[in-house]
Amino acid sequence: MYRTLRLLASSSRLLRAQTSASASPPAFSGNGFLRFRLPNSARMASQNSYRIEYDTFGELKVPNDKYYGAQTVRSTMNFKIGGVTERMPIPVIKAFGILKRAAAEVNQDYGLDPKIAAAIMKAADEVAEGKLNDHFPLVVWQTGSGTQTNMNVNEVISNRAIEMLGGELGSKKPVHPNDHVNKSQSSNDTFPTAMHIAAAIEVHEVLLPGLQKLHDALNAKSKEFTQIIKIGRTHTQDAVPLTLGQEFSGYVQQVKYATARIKAAMPRIYELAAGGTAVGTGLNTRIGFAEKVAAKVAALTGLPFVTAPNKFEALAAHDALVELSGAMNTTACSLMKIANDIRFLGSGPRSGLGELILPENEPGSSIMPGKVNPTQCEAMTMVAAQVMGNHVAVTVGGSNGHFELNVFKPMMIKNVLHSARLLGDAAVSFTENCVVGIQANTERIDKLMSESLMLVTALNPHIGYDKAAKIAKTAHKNGSTLKATAIELGYLTAEQFDEWVKPKDMLGPK
Amino acid sequence: MYRTLRLLASSSRLLRAQTSASASPPAFSGNGFLRFRLPNSARMASQNSYRIEYDTFGELKVPNDKYYGAQTVRSTMNFKIGGVTERMPIPVIKAFGILKRAAAEVNQDYGLDPKIAAAIMKAADEVAEGKLNDHFPLVVWQTGSGTQTNMNVNEVISNRAIEMLGGELGSKKPVHPNDHVNKSQSSNDTFPTAMHIAAAIEVHEVLLPGLQKLHDALNAKSKEFTQIIKIGRTHTQDAVPLTLGQEFSGYVQQVKYATARIKAAMPRIYELAAGGTAVGTGLNTRIGFAEKVAAKVAALTGLPFVTAPNKFEALAAHDALVELSGAMNTTACSLMKIANDIRFLGSGPRSGLGELILPENEPGSSIMPGKVNPTQCEAMTMVAAQVMGNHVAVTVGGSNGHFELNVFKPMMIKNVLHSARLLGDAAVSFTENCVVGIQANTERIDKLMSESLMLVTALNPHIGYDKAAKIAKTAHKNGSTLKATAIELGYLTAEQFDEWVKPKDMLGPK
Amino acid sequence: MYRTLRLLASSSRLLRAQTSASASPPAFSGNGFLRFRLPNSARMASQNSYRIEYDTFGELKVPNDKYYGAQTVRSTMNFKIGGVTERMPIPVIKAFGILKRAAAEVNQDYGLDPKIAAAIMKAADEVAEGKLNDHFPLVVWQTGSGTQTNMNVNEVISNRAIEMLGGELGSKKPVHPNDHVNKSQSSNDTFPTAMHIAAAIEVHEVLLPGLQKLHDALNAKSKEFTQIIKIGRTHTQDAVPLTLGQEFSGYVQQVKYATARIKAAMPRIYELAAGGTAVGTGLNTRIGFAEKVAAKVAALTGLPFVTAPNKFEALAAHDALVELSGAMNTTACSLMKIANDIRFLGSGPRSGLGELILPENEPGSSIMPGKVNPTQCEAMTMVAAQVMGNHVAVTVGGSNGHFELNVFKPMMIKNVLHSARLLGDAAVSFTENCVVGIQANTERIDKLMSESLMLVTALNPHIGYDKAAKIAKTAHKNGSTLKATAIELGYLTAEQFDEWVKPKDMLGPK
Amino acid sequence: MYRTLRLLASSSRLLRAQTSASASPPAFSGNGFLRFRLPNSARMASQNSYRIEYDTFGELKVPNDKYYGAQTVRSTMNFKIGGVTERMPIPVIKAFGILKRAAAEVNQDYGLDPKIAAAIMKAADEVAEGKLNDHFPLVVWQTGSGTQTNMNVNEVISNRAIEMLGGELGSKKPVHPNDHVNKSQSSNDTFPTAMHIAAAIEVHEVLLPGLQKLHDALNAKSKEFTQIIKIGRTHTQDAVPLTLGQEFSGYVQQVKYATARIKAAMPRIYELAAGGTAVGTGLNTRIGFAEKVAAKVAALTGLPFVTAPNKFEALAAHDALVELSGAMNTTACSLMKIANDIRFLGSGPRSGLGELILPENEPGSSIMPGKVNPTQCEAMTMVAAQVMGNHVAVTVGGSNGHFELNVFKPMMIKNVLHSARLLGDAAVSFTENCVVGIQANTERIDKLMSESLMLVTALNPHIGYDKAAKIAKTAHKNGSTLKATAIELGYLTAEQFDEWVKPKDMLGPK
Repeated sequence: MYRTLRLLASSSRLLRAQTSASASPPAFSGNGFLRFRLPNSARMASQNSYRIEYDTFGELKVPNDKYYGAQTVRSTMNFKIGGVTERMPIPVIKAFGILKRAAAEVNQDYGLDPKIAAAIMKAADEVAEGKLNDHFPLVVWQTGSGTQTNMNVNEVISNRAIEMLGGELGSKKPVHPNDHVNKSQSSNDTFPTAMHIAAAIEVHEVLLPGLQKLHDALNAKSKEFTQIIKIGRTHTQDAVPLTLGQEFSGYVQQVKYATARIKAAMPRIYELAAGGTAVGTGLNTRIGFAEKVAAKVAALTGLPFVTAPNKFEALAAHDALVELSGAMNTTACSLMKIANDIRFLGSGPRSGLGELILPENEPGSSIMPGKVNPTQCEAMTMVAAQVMGNHVAVTVGGSNGHFELNVFKPMMIKNVLHSARLLGDAAVSFTENCVVGIQANTERIDKLMSESLMLVTALNPHIGYDKAAKIAKTAHKNGSTLKATAIELGYLTAEQFDEWVKPKDMLGPK
Repeated sequence: MYRTLRLLASSSRLLRAQTSASASPPAFSGNGFLRFRLPNSARMASQNSYRIEYDTFGELKVPNDKYYGAQTVRSTMNFKIGGVTERMPIPVIKAFGILKRAAAEVNQDYGLDPKIAAAIMKAADEVAEGKLNDHFPLVVWQTGSGTQTNMNVNEVISNRAIEMLGGELGSKKPVHPNDHVNKSQSSNDTFPTAMHIAAAIEVHEVLLPGLQKLHDALNAKSKEFTQIIKIGRTHTQDAVPLTLGQEFSGYVQQVKYATARIKAAMPRIYELAAGGTAVGTGLNTRIGFAEKVAAKVAALTGLPFVTAPNKFEALAAHDALVELSGAMNTTACSLMKIANDIRFLGSGPRSGLGELILPENEPGSSIMPGKVNPTQCEAMTMVAAQVMGNHVAVTVGGSNGHFELNVFKPMMIKNVLHSARLLGDAAVSFTENCVVGIQANTERIDKLMSESLMLVTALNPHIGYDKAAKIAKTAHKNGSTLKATAIELGYLTAEQFDEWVKPKDMLGPK
Repeated sequence: MYRTLRLLASSSRLLRAQTSASASPPAFSGNGFLRFRLPNSARMASQNSYRIEYDTFGELKVPNDKYYGAQTVRSTMNFKIGGVTERMPIPVIKAFGILKRAAAEVNQDYGLDPKIAAAIMKAADEVAEGKLNDHFPLVVWQTGSGTQTNMNVNEVISNRAIEMLGGELGSKKPVHPNDHVNKSQSSNDTFPTAMHIAAAIEVHEVLLPGLQKLHDALNAKSKEFTQIIKIGRTHTQDAVPLTLGQEFSGYVQQVKYATARIKAAMPRIYELAAGGTAVGTGLNTRIGFAEKVAAKVAALTGLPFVTAPNKFEALAAHDALVELSGAMNTTACSLMKIANDIRFLGSGPRSGLGELILPENEPGSSIMPGKVNPTQCEAMTMVAAQVMGNHVAVTVGGSNGHFELNVFKPMMIKNVLHSARLLGDAAVSFTENCVVGIQANTERIDKLMSESLMLVTALNPHIGYDKAAKIAKTAHKNGSTLKATAIELGYLTAEQFDEWVKPKDMLGPK
Repeated sequence: MYRTLRLLASSSRLLRAQTSASASPPAFSGNGFLRFRLPNSARMASQNSYRIEYDTFGELKVPNDKYYGAQTVRSTMNFKIGGVTERMPIPVIKAFGILKRAAAEVNQDYGLDPKIAAAIMKAADEVAEGKLNDHFPLVVWQTGSGTQTNMNVNEVISNRAIEMLGGELGSKKPVHPNDHVNKSQSSNDTFPTAMHIAAAIEVHEVLLPGLQKLHDALNAKSKEFTQIIKIGRTHTQDAVPLTLGQEFSGYVQQVKYATARIKAAMPRIYELAAGGTAVGTGLNTRIGFAEKVAAKVAALTGLPFVTAPNKFEALAAHDALVELSGAMNTTACSLMKIANDIRFLGSGPRSGLGELILPENEPGSSIMPGKVNPTQCEAMTMVAAQVMGNHVAVTVGGSNGHFELNVFKPMMIKNVLHSARLLGDAAVSFTENCVVGIQANTERIDKLMSESLMLVTALNPHIGYDKAAKIAKTAHKNGSTLKATAIELGYLTAEQFDEWVKPKDMLGPK
């Protein structure tokens, strides 16, 4: 059971791939298509018809082809902020599906009618699989606890379960959104639980695989470039040589550590708030509920979730998300550095550094052959800047919790997921469309290397510091090479120069 | 001509309202609907058919029902970063429509075939009006100059114009995307021009009206509360009294200044880069082109756009956007403060400060009457945190331009527009769903006021500092009132206390 | 009277120069020197002796050679955070001197004993002139209203005035720190007043003159380089030409606008909170006090200070500082861009872009002539990063005020002053040690220019697009020049090439 | 040997205590005192006399009583940015002392004259112990590699060693600053090494002990408050009860995790760049040098330093510092939350929440007994805001490295050390002056608890949901208690109410 999800979760990026294919389009599509996609949707009326539902404030029109209910509709009326791009991220919705499924299973252990539990589980699976994405219209700019999204989920699962059981949408019978779907739960503990599940999945499905791919490609280049000796640059100025492979090895190390940093933040992400209910005490849950739900979520996702050791912290603070965001912020610094280096090393074709030849992905100017705009570097550095900004938003939200609840939850998770997705996607795009195709412009590299005045240092032991300095200064003044100058000055022969000045001897300690 | 747009631009929020209605849905809708919405779309084949287009890299399949062409398709292949929510913001697309229309008009003055110019103008108008939103699938994470979006616009306008003239999509005849639509232009000057147009319109259509609405509502409350004397709080601790009207007048001033700050940033936003072409020199344009285009854009939008006095700055730096973002960052601080105050002053119902009664917008706990979660305050403070984060992203992007071009353009404008929209929308939502409905809990306010130990200061002139201090200390210790304590200590009579201790005399200088 | 300060305030940087000379050293110096520097300090006992003072918590030892009193000493005991570098910035102390002097003058108008008022004014002048910097040991990490620094100032002025009048230090007679020095004032309005005075003076004495100097030097270079045609670079890649003067004109515009942005923020900085007292109502002041104090401060400083129109805003929010910080943040972006460009354009000597020759300020490697590290660019970009960070600190502080008081005051002003000082100083250092000495490496610039493949565009009208493209592609492939290739291909003669390919015709619209 | 330092390093805060006492004052003191403090300083001439030293740019006057030399003096001339408070942080100087000592020891192994090595070690020890702080006048706003500070250290150690050996200051004999003190080193690897050493020591000496102290105090309070049942607050609104001990346990968990986060960042801080020399290759060092230096530094400090596995990354990127800064940023969020809660819970005395009684540390208003300003909370939240800002500065610097060297080094380490010191010191101050003295206002807590309408939930099983809701609504409307209302409505007896409504049964799952 639940094999599908588990399967997807364990195969890198597959879940997401499917997500893109099956989930996103309906999320924004017109209603007319739904009949071909949703199970039993024949029960739903046309898009022009509504059913009337009630909440304590009065009656509300709910579109007949939607599973959500009155509380969702009311939220769309009260929070007209930002439009469809501001909707609660789909990974949060899916995470809720996983959580609600797990909770139903545990609730059944504690006595929930198995028929109801089974229907909830089935409906929740559909949410987890992204089949009902269309039914979650709420934006993140709602109540800061995510209450309305929790209710949106409860309503959708309830109605979908009712439908499966042959009931009437909106009747709350036989599956009640609060009494059954939300049983032993509160928005205050479910939303942070969904945040952690969503963040962990996005990290595992998108971010880490993306970084791994980039790491491997850079590592391959580092090895490929082992023999290419080039001039080093410090302060952006010419310096002593190193190999292009060594240069790339620094990037490899950065990405390797980026992965380590993100992984180091995960243990606290794996802690789930579920079981804390309204204020962290666990009022209205059963002893053992918290642990069992965490175990179910772990089983469903294949990730090592556990119940949070302190539920008060888990509701009132989201330091774990600030921490994860911080790890991504550091990653952004790393990727900004790498992408910047690559675009400068690839600058040219004539008036730049020109040491790297970057793959040409788009038509350059038809009149300007060789002009390859480093567009992948640009996308990457823009992503890095965005992640740094997102991190500040997460930080401000994380620092402003009060008493038993932090109420910047939707904003925080939106930014964390945004950063994870952008970094992961950009890493893949940058790898596939740039890194793997990088070639060394060895001719140019050799030319710069051979013209370099730095190599004069190798002559010190042979002709002494003063003469070496004289060579360098004269060469710089005349714009000539060290070798020509040295010979011209009569300090050594061409053969001696070639024997003594060997950049490859300058690549490590003695 | 172009009356519609001008009209909309001058009537606050109308443009946007229409935008929401007509533009956003098709942007994400399935293709099937298009035939009912797009002029002449009968010419387009079904969604399953493609036409073949070419760029210098080879052939590409372009969906037959899309106006975009090969370069757009190639970008979607090279930049799979982030999904549909990361698409170039619609306001940028519309701004491009306005710019392309203006450029065509000016190009006609300089000799462009009037028939071609007219078709371009008509197609550009459709882009400006949001009728073709569906045809702009590119994400912001592309080349940092926005080149691909400029080409997307050129392709869409070219093909739509071709269609109007009875030509074949993708034939580039008789309207060529580069030679005609992009005439006298470069991505490097058109994209920053579109950025400024989009930012200016969003500020005028969304941000400033939203802030004005909030200002007016706060101002009305400030006047409504003029007579309500309440205890002041400094360091979150009890302090000397002020009126609730005075307290709200501080908020009014903050929002008033927010508006002033944003307006102060606009003069540099009104400067357009158009005419600078590739590096700012204006190569391939005509003398006067820059000025005329700016004038046309000004006429079309009703906003005082001018040509940028220095095109090198206008392409290579986007300080103007950093500045505007900074003004919005300050606004975010103001709104965070106001929303925080209101939620704390409205906290309760029994165990909080309880001085304000906030409107109840959603069902509270059915068992907990009076529990009104300050959800609008929460949405507002989340928005504020987001704007602060966006500002850092804009800052990082703005600081990292190189030589003749800043290549963080799409990221920067995305964040600026995001902040403007969120602040404007949140201001409206906060106003309508919270501020206008705020009531003073005068009973509670009076109770706290009368119990306050601070009022003892009024006794100093009458009974001396020492006795006054004795009263206060005793009252604090015993938890009794100043009046009861004073009488009990025999320092004065009830009548004297009432005569001498008058909070309303403590509300200003003497 | 007060001529000195007025004089200094109107002459750019003079005040600060004197400050550095006379003020900073004693702030951190041992006590032994004081006898040579402080008036009447013979009255003070040796550094090992203490006088006993009392506050309501008991007795405290106050160093006999210090003018501060018990409340200052107690603060040093309660806030051991960060050490001497974290002390309240001297500009705040001086601003307090100006404010206390103004307040005393106005208080005299309202009846304060002229003898006492005169002594306070004289002592306050000494504070304003930086003569008593040694007596302000408190760190910024104290109470968030700056109360303890206000009391520190009150104590120092009181004791110094007492001393002048022949009284006993610590006796509070005849000049009482609260009753006389702080008359009609509260920490809650004096500290924000001092913040604004300090910020305005630092902006006028350090920041704006520094930027002006940089502007003028860049402008001179822009004019000097008018005739030097060079290759442009977009996306860090070769592009069409512009003049070096045009390139620098972009920097000039950035700095010009930086100044405009900062000035645009000043009107709200000129608004003073004085007169608002504890919560903004002005309790315990006299009608007219606020306006008169602002006028006095304006007269003393030569800056257009006015009383804040809304004192509630002036105490509870510091949006004006966030705004000013935002203007400096934008300036930081501008300067980061300029300094980055200059270091890259000056990179080399052999393997960089090499178009600029930067002044050599420090010994480079003795073996590596020509290696000039762009150290001034590095200092400038580090300063820019710091200012961006400071801005976030100011933003976080500015957003977290509660009710009638923002209690992040000392932190906010510390960061604002830090940014202003660093930007101003770095602008001067960068100008004097780098910009004025920049030389164009015309040989290198010409070489890159002549080798550029971009110039082929000029041939289009003469030989057609196809042949021009053929030339460019062949030249790129063979690494040869356009001219040689064109001749080799037989498309034109050397004379024709020279006549048709003229970069100087590519510098503007036609 | 070197026992002293090792000893200090292992005893928490001792090193720092001594630092404050012996080091900081001379750092800023006049010269006159030096003769009493510095070994052999009698050899130095008076403060008015200078010696002439030379660098390749000409002669420079070096104060006779300073150990630094020409390159240091030149830096003070070229970088007049920000004044004494901007000097290179003393922990960096001390870390350099440790490094130079270790390098000398290893160099001796590789053949350095033992007499010279011994003198260098002795002088370096003095630097490490803070005895020569006066001799490091350079500001952080210098070259971005910290070259000038490295030379400052080399000069000071060289001259001090020369002095010990009876030589002449400035003669470079017998101990040469470059050839001997800097042997096998480069600024490019020594400065990042010193950065890591300084950060690690500050974390261990200041930050972690401070957090531990705070953790323990909060933990003690959490246990002390185990039996105190209070109302919970979510959305700042009344919610179901928890114990005050539970509420504090959330804070305990936050601080516990803060420590864990910081420790998780340390492994990469323990990696030292030493041995990478100019570009990371290790040119001019000996095989094994890197490992041996790291081992020596580890032995000297008692911290597990190792040589960085990739020196290219260690010079060109400072992700490890961004990471550590990120952990401190998360800590700042935690502490902001805790301090905010405590000040709000302690607000009052009459018109706030009033559940906590905070220790009174300073004289409150003499007329306002009970007004305790939460000044420690204010200092803490200001520190938190500063740390968030510092983090952005570190992030911007960390993202802007180029090629083989990041040149934002001094700025980055300044901010990292600033954050560590402020957080550590503030944690101690907050603990000692606030947390340990917090008392529960049980009377107030009980009153709020007993008046709460939330408790009605306990009646559901006994009288049914409808009657319970009726009670709550009626009580809210009438402002009466649940108990009185329930009895009045005739739903139950006083005894029944007391039996059924037991907050202590609402504190956990069943």
